[in-house]
Amino acid sequence: MPTMPEFNLSEAIAILSRTPTTLDALLRGQPDIWTRRNEGRSNQDKDTWNAFDIVGHLIAGERTDWMPRVRIILEHGEAQAFDPFDRLAQQKESQNKSLEQRLDEFARLRNENLVALEALNLQPEDLTRRGMHPALGVVTLSELLATWAVHDLTHLHQLSRVMAHQYRDAVGPWRVYLGVLKCAGHSA
Amino acid sequence: MPTMPEFNLSEAIAILSRTPTTLDALLRGQPDIWTRRNEGRSNQDKDTWNAFDIVGHLIAGERTDWMPRVRIILEHGEAQAFDPFDRLAQQKESQNKSLEQRLDEFARLRNENLVALEALNLQPEDLTRRGMHPALGVVTLSELLATWAVHDLTHLHQLSRVMAHQYRDAVGPWRVYLGVLKCAGHSA
Repeated sequence: MPTMPEFNLSEAIAILSRTPTTLDALLRGQPDIWTRRNEGRSNQDKDTWNAFDIVGHLIAGERTDWMPRVRIILEHGEAQAFDPFDRLAQQKESQNKSLEQRLDEFARLRNENLVALEALNLQPEDLTRRGMHPALGVVTLSELLATWAVHDLTHLHQLSRVMAHQYRDAVGPWRVYLGVLKCAGHSA
Repeated sequence: MPTMPEFNLSEAIAILSRTPTTLDALLRGQPDIWTRRNEGRSNQDKDTWNAFDIVGHLIAGERTDWMPRVRIILEHGEAQAFDPFDRLAQQKESQNKSLEQRLDEFARLRNENLVALEALNLQPEDLTRRGMHPALGVVTLSELLATWAVHDLTHLHQLSRVMAHQYRDAVGPWRVYLGVLKCAGHSA
């Protein structure tokens, strides 16, 4: 049996279950400067994301990525590759909804998915089951679940950076002490 | 009058008032893997911080840094330099308290400080008042207040990175897609 470095299902769920309330506490009712502004255009000349986009991206993941991939691994193993994840799916989400509606939608979908995950009653041996990522090749169920949790954290990391960026000039000479303002992002 | 790029007091307070609930949502009740582990030793051979340390550092800032500096600017202007900020003050905080007690303490102190800040009834012209930073030289009140807010965000950025680091191996090949795992920190 392959080793699973440090993965523990209940610890992953401890992250996944807290992300909706964390984002809600950080974002609900914020003025537009913190939710509707991005970091400008990246060096690939693409628009970067604001908080509204990030929550939309998390919603899309709940709908089309994480639990569907769990089920593909359990039902088909390596025989059926995952559908590629559409990183820009949030652009297809309604632009007319408020950020608060997106936060509500994310919380509802995440809760439904965690209920479904717990209903699978996964056993330790299930966590080593293998699936086929369309680009990365063979992956395990534990790697997928760990990635779901770290994906939340990578977007919290991004969000804190995008928000801080709005005060890049306002902090004046303190800029040199504020690590988040030195972060240029880490997109592949 | 010097321009104040983008600074708005109510927008800064919108960040400052949400940080305690954000950290509470993210951290309260978490298993130790997410709160008591750090990123190991940095290349300066110092211990890096875990969530418990970070909340302790924020508590120290509320006690000795932000509002005391606001008052020094208002009472003494550039004539009295700020006391240097002790970045390791959290090591003097009680190590016997739980993370939950630290979260409660941070929330209480932040609330008291925001009540005190609002009681100052700062006017736009006050925001251009100048003070003396012991290392950075002349700074303005608006820069201090903007830095207080971005300092919250830089530690949220750090916290998401420290937590994600614990699953650096568990995510397997997905590592290449997760920006937060490429972040080595941005300490000066």
